[in-house]
Amino acid sequence: MIQPVENGARLELNSPIKLPNASAFLWNRKMMVHMNCRGYTVAQFMQPEPSKYAHAPNLEAKTFMQPEQPYYAHHPGRFFYIKDEESKELFSAPYAPIKKPLDSYIFSAGKSDILWKIEHDGLYIEMRLSLPSNEALEQWSFTIKNNTPITRKISIYPYFPVGYMSWMNQSGEYNENLNAIVCSSITPYQKYKEYDRIKTLKDKTYLLADTVPTSWEVNQAAFEGEGGLHNPTGIAGIELLKGDARYETPACVLQYRLELEPEQEKTYRFLFGPAKDETEIADIGKRYFNDTAENGASGFDTVKQEYDNYISKGKGCLQIKTPDPALDNFVNHWLPRQIYYHGETNRLSTDPQTRNYLQDNMGTGYIQKEVARQAYITALSQQEENGAMPDGILIHEDAVLKYINQVPHTDHCVWLPVCLKAYLDETNDYGLLQEIVPFANTKKTATVAEHISLAMLWLYTTRDERGLNFIEQGDWCDPMNMVGPKGKGVSGWLSMGTAYALKTWAGICRNNNTIALAEEFSKKAAELNSAINTHLWDGNWYARGITDDNVVFGVKKDPEGRIFLNTQGWALLSGCADEEKSKKIIAAVQNELETPYGVEMLAPSFTKMRKDVGRVTQKHPGSAENGAVYNHAATFYIFGLYTTGHTEKAYEVLRKMIPGQDETDLVQRGQLPVFIPNYYRGAYRQFPRTAGRSSQLFNTGAAPWFYRCLIDGLFGLRGDIDGLHINPQLPKEWDRVEVLRQFRGATYKVNIQREAGISKTIVAVNGQILESPVITNIEKGIFDVDVRIPKV
Amino acid sequence: MIQPVENGARLELNSPIKLPNASAFLWNRKMMVHMNCRGYTVAQFMQPEPSKYAHAPNLEAKTFMQPEQPYYAHHPGRFFYIKDEESKELFSAPYAPIKKPLDSYIFSAGKSDILWKIEHDGLYIEMRLSLPSNEALEQWSFTIKNNTPITRKISIYPYFPVGYMSWMNQSGEYNENLNAIVCSSITPYQKYKEYDRIKTLKDKTYLLADTVPTSWEVNQAAFEGEGGLHNPTGIAGIELLKGDARYETPACVLQYRLELEPEQEKTYRFLFGPAKDETEIADIGKRYFNDTAENGASGFDTVKQEYDNYISKGKGCLQIKTPDPALDNFVNHWLPRQIYYHGETNRLSTDPQTRNYLQDNMGTGYIQKEVARQAYITALSQQEENGAMPDGILIHEDAVLKYINQVPHTDHCVWLPVCLKAYLDETNDYGLLQEIVPFANTKKTATVAEHISLAMLWLYTTRDERGLNFIEQGDWCDPMNMVGPKGKGVSGWLSMGTAYALKTWAGICRNNNTIALAEEFSKKAAELNSAINTHLWDGNWYARGITDDNVVFGVKKDPEGRIFLNTQGWALLSGCADEEKSKKIIAAVQNELETPYGVEMLAPSFTKMRKDVGRVTQKHPGSAENGAVYNHAATFYIFGLYTTGHTEKAYEVLRKMIPGQDETDLVQRGQLPVFIPNYYRGAYRQFPRTAGRSSQLFNTGAAPWFYRCLIDGLFGLRGDIDGLHINPQLPKEWDRVEVLRQFRGATYKVNIQREAGISKTIVAVNGQILESPVITNIEKGIFDVDVRIPKV
Repeated sequence: MIQPVENGARLELNSPIKLPNASAFLWNRKMMVHMNCRGYTVAQFMQPEPSKYAHAPNLEAKTFMQPEQPYYAHHPGRFFYIKDEESKELFSAPYAPIKKPLDSYIFSAGKSDILWKIEHDGLYIEMRLSLPSNEALEQWSFTIKNNTPITRKISIYPYFPVGYMSWMNQSGEYNENLNAIVCSSITPYQKYKEYDRIKTLKDKTYLLADTVPTSWEVNQAAFEGEGGLHNPTGIAGIELLKGDARYETPACVLQYRLELEPEQEKTYRFLFGPAKDETEIADIGKRYFNDTAENGASGFDTVKQEYDNYISKGKGCLQIKTPDPALDNFVNHWLPRQIYYHGETNRLSTDPQTRNYLQDNMGTGYIQKEVARQAYITALSQQEENGAMPDGILIHEDAVLKYINQVPHTDHCVWLPVCLKAYLDETNDYGLLQEIVPFANTKKTATVAEHISLAMLWLYTTRDERGLNFIEQGDWCDPMNMVGPKGKGVSGWLSMGTAYALKTWAGICRNNNTIALAEEFSKKAAELNSAINTHLWDGNWYARGITDDNVVFGVKKDPEGRIFLNTQGWALLSGCADEEKSKKIIAAVQNELETPYGVEMLAPSFTKMRKDVGRVTQKHPGSAENGAVYNHAATFYIFGLYTTGHTEKAYEVLRKMIPGQDETDLVQRGQLPVFIPNYYRGAYRQFPRTAGRSSQLFNTGAAPWFYRCLIDGLFGLRGDIDGLHINPQLPKEWDRVEVLRQFRGATYKVNIQREAGISKTIVAVNGQILESPVITNIEKGIFDVDVRIPKV
Repeated sequence: MIQPVENGARLELNSPIKLPNASAFLWNRKMMVHMNCRGYTVAQFMQPEPSKYAHAPNLEAKTFMQPEQPYYAHHPGRFFYIKDEESKELFSAPYAPIKKPLDSYIFSAGKSDILWKIEHDGLYIEMRLSLPSNEALEQWSFTIKNNTPITRKISIYPYFPVGYMSWMNQSGEYNENLNAIVCSSITPYQKYKEYDRIKTLKDKTYLLADTVPTSWEVNQAAFEGEGGLHNPTGIAGIELLKGDARYETPACVLQYRLELEPEQEKTYRFLFGPAKDETEIADIGKRYFNDTAENGASGFDTVKQEYDNYISKGKGCLQIKTPDPALDNFVNHWLPRQIYYHGETNRLSTDPQTRNYLQDNMGTGYIQKEVARQAYITALSQQEENGAMPDGILIHEDAVLKYINQVPHTDHCVWLPVCLKAYLDETNDYGLLQEIVPFANTKKTATVAEHISLAMLWLYTTRDERGLNFIEQGDWCDPMNMVGPKGKGVSGWLSMGTAYALKTWAGICRNNNTIALAEEFSKKAAELNSAINTHLWDGNWYARGITDDNVVFGVKKDPEGRIFLNTQGWALLSGCADEEKSKKIIAAVQNELETPYGVEMLAPSFTKMRKDVGRVTQKHPGSAENGAVYNHAATFYIFGLYTTGHTEKAYEVLRKMIPGQDETDLVQRGQLPVFIPNYYRGAYRQFPRTAGRSSQLFNTGAAPWFYRCLIDGLFGLRGDIDGLHINPQLPKEWDRVEVLRQFRGATYKVNIQREAGISKTIVAVNGQILESPVITNIEKGIFDVDVRIPKV
């Protein structure tokens, strides 16, 4: 059903039915396109907030990205109808809206384009979407070839619905001078002051064509008629009626009538996107369709090449060859791409949540070190003088805190040292700690190191008399909003987070030669761990917290939400769990939370409101934070397992994060292995029918942590102040892996092999055996690294 | 194509195609259903803000009601699929989703129900929707009859889609105990404090059946499958799969398998609506399906009867018989119903705009005097001490000012005397003027008369040095927001409105024996009229206003927005226009603004932003305030024409407000004559293709003014302090009309007839000729009134 091609750089799906919501995504610095295998599309561009240029058929709510979005006949999409003018046979590419069975079908997700290859009734079609690297528009090419021995008379109708643009003003018409359909609107507003904002918006949507069409239709209702989208009335005629839309829902429909000789093919190119005015559209048409480069390439092709180059910059620092080709494929191609996407777009937000911003940039540190470096400085420049971090980081001058960032959460400081550690390990850029950075709303400044120490003291201070961290209206778990609104409730996870952050910061301070600070923070971390063990150990696992009314929750006597994953994963990280407790934790997680699709965030999922826990209990059981396989939380657990040497379990859980262990698994998840989704449905023991289903949302903190698990854990090729530490934690079935590791300018060709008779890891660089498994004195160059690990 | 039946109490449409968006509406005190002839539906209920229980398939924006809403395959609706189990023939009632041509089709709009009568393939179907009078739910009955000579094996599938309920939580399942499909959700929220509000909401949607189904499906995607809504995969099987929805889009689908002998019929009943919990649904099922009244009627039938009684209370005070049966039908049945709807629901708002609230209650004064009386008191109790009226009237304890009510408008005081005059004319309730009413945010009180005098002084005071009224961010025309934001721009219309309000209030003061006040306000009105004539007369009509930058607009040199209707209609009312100016005005309106569909609000419609006029110029040309036939403004003009004796022109324009002068007209408007829409598309001279199309929005201030034009103008049966004034202004083609006029407890059977040889109106009551055409000493009883008017 799926097949990697081009050495894994593309992934092909051969059915439009078996994974109906399977999708791929493209982005650039201005936009994002989430493309479903049937042609349904969600596309957004930034101006500066996310905006759409193709809309639902009704007035759609503006919201953050939602999981498991359903598609329906009139959902925005990019479709081509093909009519045989002699037989009147009609079908649509890539599949919707007609949904006629095709003779062959391939949906091919590439890193810098999305391609369909379709054959039906002797006509072979390739349709390809790509983006420019720094402009909000879609580049489409559509090629049709006659694979029959007779001449074919056909009509092709690109159908790009534009939807309900605005209740104030929407219209559309074909513009002969531009050879484009131009749909116009005014963003709805009511308040006088808003005019200054809306007047700058790109409120037009255009479909620019390289070839003059036979006819067109801009009126969606006229095109669809009584026939419906599966059989549009407009197509029944010899030509479209050249209608316009006047305060009517517009659509971009063109018709190309053509004759194809046997073996003949014909290509059409289109540009679809938002614009401010006709002048901008004319300029785009000129640059893509009229201009040619010195090498003779069209603007269209030059921009496509630039985009390929842009995407290829997101390679990451790891290329692997293991006994698991599906893992290799995902890690070599798709995972660094997803991390790169997060760093480049900040999830299409102007106010990313502080914890997301820091963790996304933890990933960016493996790909674009300068971008990550600047992100730490940007984040810290918005810190309060008392050490508190804001709920979101404003990264655009017009940005304000929106949605969940208007709810106070107490965990944001945790991520500073935790993420920075990965950056420092990778870069050794301890100079960053001495950079002078301001605070928010004041003229005061401090070094990065001082900023983070303040953050650590803020976390240390905002604890109750038991020594546990207050949760207020949420911690990492956004919707856990009723544990602590009265100012008493505490978070078990956050207490562990504080301990781990303090411990991590102590380590950085030690590396930074501020030993007194290191000792102080280590001691504080130990205090936290002690308080955690006193108040939160439930016999077989750690409780999740204690409510305002002093009720410990996430414990065995709770009928729902009995165990939470985060207080187990982070117990491994913070060090509060000794070996015995660790063993019990891992057993409990296995019994209560593991599923074929990964490890759930809590169980049993809440089926009704628990008022002293909050909104998380009102989400649908098994969705999102209410007991999904929430991959971000799962990666914490995996990282904890690797950190504490639980190698086999770590890999077992990690591997379940990639969809497609077999076809049944693939169908159940419904997603291609081209990204990690934010969740798979959980509540496996309560609602098995839906368990495993992907959210299809590719914004997730799981991606950078997955990568860190690979580097620090599975392949054990982690940097530190003294060099590259080599400590592979391969699953026991693996005898050998090859890793290409880019590190501080050096390229290490690492060959890891099991060897009988040795009891510890032996490392040789260019044939020279090292005394300890650390490569020091890192230099530019290419090095062969031979790693032997004990046979098990 | 359309046909009134049951003496006009119902209107039938015989095609689902010719007027695809034709619709009717039902309401009660808790809800409103806007039902399209094809089954597409918009339904809202109050809790206290408008809410939905059947949603779009995607997250839909919460908004005020929008004109010209497009429908699409997955739009909410109420549909029945019918399958012949032997031939496999499939069709849907009433028409969508399959849209198969039917052998016969009737969409029948009743005053208290909506009914379809359909025949296809020998099966006759009646499906009827009605509401209870004080509960938010839909009552459905579905009857199918075998009109063929053979036994038929069929399956019937009610398909009531529920749509995308919530991203937090949505699910649905069949509940055997209730014999209902119950869909559950949590209204999305993020802020802790919002929980207290959302926890009270009716977040469930149910379909309760009186008959146990053969099978069911609650999962929309499973039901639709690859087949699409025109051919759902779920129906292909012998039975539905009894699936549920778990964080999936739910739909209520039932199957009834049955055999019908020749001539046999079978009826099913359903209830569809929102509920808080299963207990409430169980209670509803019991009351409607299990309980019977003393007379043996089912709860279902008893409630239907109660609703008929409720609706029949909205009869109005006028029954007419004229040479124009379509007018009679509309005026006798539909117009008072629409006015009653406004009074009962306040347009489904908890903060109706002050001007809408007062004008809607002007209509209510003809139907429910006590309701209207209380409305004036409620409105005045929210007046500021300085006389200013707020932008909206809060009519629910949780209400706040929303949407356009957050934008300051300066006209609200105008409507107090203007609307009150109609109430006093009808009721003679001058006692209301002495009622003691508080002000907003203070302990101070005043009589109603004092309140209104203050309002008049506020209007008189908020004028510029020229003596014209400041407009700030809008007057009656909400989006005219950039004429006066700097505090200098003035409104020509509002200046006329002030003059007319002062004049009207002077008349009321005179009737109330406060002669000094009457004289003062008359003098002030004259000042306004003088200023208007000095600054706004443009040679052939009055300008609309003067901007902040001292630019007079709405004048002949303007390429767009050259003439505005409101400063012509109100020039007639305020008295600023003398006879010569009136003649010029009427000629200009005829030349520039009249269309076959009524009179436009301005022309030419703006095609681009005019920054010193504002948002109105950004609306689509010909839509809403930007040059539609905006019926509310048209009724002002008509009222002005009647007030100044321009009888023929008044009727000509009034008559165009009712859709369906002929079939071409009906198709162009696309609306049934069961309500006045807020607009028909204008820009007739710019965009003739769309001109005349109805907005399909039945919330409009046009309805009460239309009624007032009939009473005060066309039939001339207006009350005043001394009795009933008789001054018919019939169009010259009419020789005779009969009017049943309810007035202050009396019933007048008025027969108006033209008579040759007389030069003024002669009135006889029960055979006694009156000295002047005023019936004084109004008493209870039935009276024959014979009115003779001159032949023309």
